[in-house]
Amino acid sequence: MTPRVRLEDADDLAEHYTPGVAEVAKRVAEDPSVLARETVKANSVAIVSDGSALLGLGDQGPAAALPVMEGKAALLKRFADVDAWPICPVSREPDDLVRTVKDLATSFGAINLEDIAAPRCFTVERRLHDELEVPVFHDDQHGTAVAVLGALRNALELTDREPADTSVVISGAGAAGAAITRLLLSADFRAEAITVCDSEGILHGGRDLTGEKHWLAEHTNRNGAKGSLQDAVRDADVFIGVSAGGLLGGGDIKRMAERAIVFALANPDPEVAPEAAGEHAEIVATGRSDLPNQINNVLVFPGMFRGLLDSAATRVTTRMLLSAAHALADTVGDDLDRQHIVPSVFDESLVPAIAEGIQRAAEDD
Amino acid sequence: MTPRVRLEDADDLAEHYTPGVAEVAKRVAEDPSVLARETVKANSVAIVSDGSALLGLGDQGPAAALPVMEGKAALLKRFADVDAWPICPVSREPDDLVRTVKDLATSFGAINLEDIAAPRCFTVERRLHDELEVPVFHDDQHGTAVAVLGALRNALELTDREPADTSVVISGAGAAGAAITRLLLSADFRAEAITVCDSEGILHGGRDLTGEKHWLAEHTNRNGAKGSLQDAVRDADVFIGVSAGGLLGGGDIKRMAERAIVFALANPDPEVAPEAAGEHAEIVATGRSDLPNQINNVLVFPGMFRGLLDSAATRVTTRMLLSAAHALADTVGDDLDRQHIVPSVFDESLVPAIAEGIQRAAEDD
Repeated sequence: MTPRVRLEDADDLAEHYTPGVAEVAKRVAEDPSVLARETVKANSVAIVSDGSALLGLGDQGPAAALPVMEGKAALLKRFADVDAWPICPVSREPDDLVRTVKDLATSFGAINLEDIAAPRCFTVERRLHDELEVPVFHDDQHGTAVAVLGALRNALELTDREPADTSVVISGAGAAGAAITRLLLSADFRAEAITVCDSEGILHGGRDLTGEKHWLAEHTNRNGAKGSLQDAVRDADVFIGVSAGGLLGGGDIKRMAERAIVFALANPDPEVAPEAAGEHAEIVATGRSDLPNQINNVLVFPGMFRGLLDSAATRVTTRMLLSAAHALADTVGDDLDRQHIVPSVFDESLVPAIAEGIQRAAEDD
Repeated sequence: MTPRVRLEDADDLAEHYTPGVAEVAKRVAEDPSVLARETVKANSVAIVSDGSALLGLGDQGPAAALPVMEGKAALLKRFADVDAWPICPVSREPDDLVRTVKDLATSFGAINLEDIAAPRCFTVERRLHDELEVPVFHDDQHGTAVAVLGALRNALELTDREPADTSVVISGAGAAGAAITRLLLSADFRAEAITVCDSEGILHGGRDLTGEKHWLAEHTNRNGAKGSLQDAVRDADVFIGVSAGGLLGGGDIKRMAERAIVFALANPDPEVAPEAAGEHAEIVATGRSDLPNQINNVLVFPGMFRGLLDSAATRVTTRMLLSAAHALADTVGDDLDRQHIVPSVFDESLVPAIAEGIQRAAEDD
């Protein structure tokens, strides 16, 4: 934390420490909204991860999560001037994680949940969403979903499609896959045209599913298709992979619709080799920084938190996510082509555009 | 948090975010000691307060505590270049507070407990002391005790006394009073020459006491004196007040020993009016910034945390507290007189002196 006040002599100390600070404390006790205007809370985010689903590495525990979350905090400062602090709890029970985050929420204006394994992440996020007075953003879910929807919006424009006429296959029914599905359903994609697959194939009502996967089976694939991921992608317009490397071959992409769109986002190895996909699909995006069309949460979360803090929002809403995705897509502007469906993270107009989108949505909510 | 790395192009991102950060995460998973050397943990302190005993204001709750703890974080940065973050839990049960602090301890190199009401503060601090791998410093207890012992050491020198021949009356049996008593007992003051009083008078074995007060009655006042605070101070060499304003009058100070030492530290109103005390005592100190000899924790905690972090200590030990008190006293140097028994907080040699004292003690522990 960088001090925002001068502390050079006894008068400064008396004003900003004892006894002066007692006056601020009394005002806060009378009106807690003072916090969000006059304290560190106004510009701060806690990045909370237990390391249970760290990057592509699986459960590495909270200590291993710390350098990752510190890196993310550095990005928030660099790109959005947000003061973030990494918090890596040893607690694993949802009740305990919820209690710890509630204990953080006095001094942070927003909470970023990160790399927490499913299904615990869903439980924790929903409880915090309902019970906390500050916005909670699970980046693996909603950051990914916003980045994907923004990129997809541009890809649809380039291939002359509308959401309502587009079929989408999503590989991966974890945190990211579930959030992408929910956001697409809110963005005019039709439930009968979305198919979600997990490692055992297409989710459908005939499978014995619980929790989030049960919800997904109920709200997608209205035609009750069954079969493998390979079966699902046949004739599909869009493939979105947030699962694991090497699940598909070039032949699978060839059997998709004309002018197919392939987002193979598994890291470090995409669901299908980008070169093979590029032979058949019109647009290919990955999570890799060494290829065009890198779809990464870093496109989203700096502007997202800037907007949440600037609007003093208390919740993350679907309207905000849609608005952020549109802002992301629009930032590409005249550079839009099949190798540029997302802006550069170094595009200085990106963070303000997303932040303004969040603020507009907050006003409309 | 201020980023410690360059983030200006895609290569920087690849190195310090994905995929580069995965390498650090893997190294930490193999050797958690990497954290204390290479992450934000190396230079960071969580300042934890539930606001249950805020300044002199009583239980004001966590929101009111935030600006106070933020002010303290600013002091830690200003005086010791420590990155501190205020955390103000809503939890009140000791079990919950302990769990939350454990969840913080991955990303902070030390914990500062602050303004937590007794007796909860004792329970929480002891459990954390036993169960955490990072040092826990309850400033209301130990910061006050170190500042008092440092000042007292100089006051004894000015009045030609030795600890073993000095009688001390402590008014206040809460967090500060208990810690001062324990530290004096470790610093060669004799158990039979220390008398502790609470609002009902002298603590002695005949009273029905529990917890910390029971311990104090057992380990002080070996002669079994009974009576009021006024009775206790009669003929005493030293009065240390960490209680409430206006408990004593000038006449009480007059009845102390010759060349009496009076530390009346209640804020904002001292236990005895400083002017009245000054008519009879040789040395008078208060907690007030507008009078000479201000005894305040800010003299101690910046150097304390600088030393704890620099020595990568895992515990706060009595040896460290004694060493810090000596360093504080020695910093006054040639300026020592009855109006200058403590250094100025702006004395640039103070923080390094205390920090070096902590490091030496850590090596000897």
